[in-house]
Amino acid sequence: MTTPPIAKALLFDVFGTVVDWRSSIIDELTQFGTTRGLKADWVALTDEWRALYQPSMEAVRSGTRAWTILDVLHRESLDALLAKHGLNAVTTADREHLTRAWHRLRPWPDVVQGLTRLKRNYIIGTLSNGNVGLLTRLAKNSALPWDVVLGAETARAYKPLPEAYRSAATLLNLPPNEVMLVAAHNGDLAAAANAGLRTAFVGRPTEYGPHQTVDFKADGPWDYVATDFGNLATQLGCTP
Amino acid sequence: MTTPPIAKALLFDVFGTVVDWRSSIIDELTQFGTTRGLKADWVALTDEWRALYQPSMEAVRSGTRAWTILDVLHRESLDALLAKHGLNAVTTADREHLTRAWHRLRPWPDVVQGLTRLKRNYIIGTLSNGNVGLLTRLAKNSALPWDVVLGAETARAYKPLPEAYRSAATLLNLPPNEVMLVAAHNGDLAAAANAGLRTAFVGRPTEYGPHQTVDFKADGPWDYVATDFGNLATQLGCTP
Repeated sequence: MTTPPIAKALLFDVFGTVVDWRSSIIDELTQFGTTRGLKADWVALTDEWRALYQPSMEAVRSGTRAWTILDVLHRESLDALLAKHGLNAVTTADREHLTRAWHRLRPWPDVVQGLTRLKRNYIIGTLSNGNVGLLTRLAKNSALPWDVVLGAETARAYKPLPEAYRSAATLLNLPPNEVMLVAAHNGDLAAAANAGLRTAFVGRPTEYGPHQTVDFKADGPWDYVATDFGNLATQLGCTP
Repeated sequence: MTTPPIAKALLFDVFGTVVDWRSSIIDELTQFGTTRGLKADWVALTDEWRALYQPSMEAVRSGTRAWTILDVLHRESLDALLAKHGLNAVTTADREHLTRAWHRLRPWPDVVQGLTRLKRNYIIGTLSNGNVGLLTRLAKNSALPWDVVLGAETARAYKPLPEAYRSAATLLNLPPNEVMLVAAHNGDLAAAANAGLRTAFVGRPTEYGPHQTVDFKADGPWDYVATDFGNLATQLGCTP
């Protein structure tokens, strides 16, 4: 068995890798519709909301827009989609509540136990495009036992820009090759590897529900490939 | 009983408020001297090391020096003091080990239990001039249950500059008056109050050992004054 040099810190992509954003947002929107007596295709609205995620960050990445946190981008995308779906009557307070649904996303079932094991041997934290306030509340709501919460603002760069990965290592006083990104997305891992980090793929084949077209399996030379966080902990020698 | 509006997040000064840096560093240096067969006044060296803390940050605060993290400042101060004490023979590896003693500081006895109670009702985190890597390892070594670790780099400003306090609130998506600084130092609390934060004083009258001259008690109109973290938790209505 050839074990690559082990990292000292494991940093996790969050949306999709740690939390099941799709079913969480569908449930929040459906519940909201029931409470307010509003009818809409909440599943479609969820998928459209997420589809605006990358484009909304791209303006910031490219420098055509000043630094803007994800909470603000999420809100702008929501406003556009409510208009599209004929839901202009939704109040400002409700829009704020719905935007904060991204602070309440549920983790996949293996996450809390897996992180608890991994934390025994490694510094564990986030390496996410989410803003620090979002990630902090997400962790608190679900008892995610992070040692450190690193968000987009701590780098002032959105993944997959190299600076997003390198700055996380710098903040932990570690060279990039002592930090491993754990992610369910091959593209994220490729960018992390290019920035000098170690890589671990954990499959989340139901992240996009029936619309999933990529990331069913590892498609790069990642240091580890695991079925879930518990399996990763076992591969890394963490006690049960 | 008049209770001021309660903050949503409690952020803690770390050196002196959360951890007993003086006895921790004295013990580390004394142990080091024994192991290496080196004689020196380790207590004096500890107090001199801490005495260089504020001057070393002042060059950064004033803008005469580019942004520099505390680990680097600690190391420079140590190098100067080892020379002063005739300890030039200490190796680079040992200097690095001793600098990292600030990553291993012990918490005061009431801290872990008090934070655990406070965490039930509030977001809890650091608001320290320590760098993120230092604060993360400090927390991991002593099981400090922070929700979020905010260090000097997340503001790129050293306390007591107002930006250090305001940026912490911004990172948590909170207005300053929904964040409370908990500190054992009246000057820190005064700066936090000027930046719009709430304030809680927790006395640490033995922080500087026989050299303590200030901060025996609260000397400003702080929102809360507590004897330790457990007492603060009780005043804030957290369950035992």
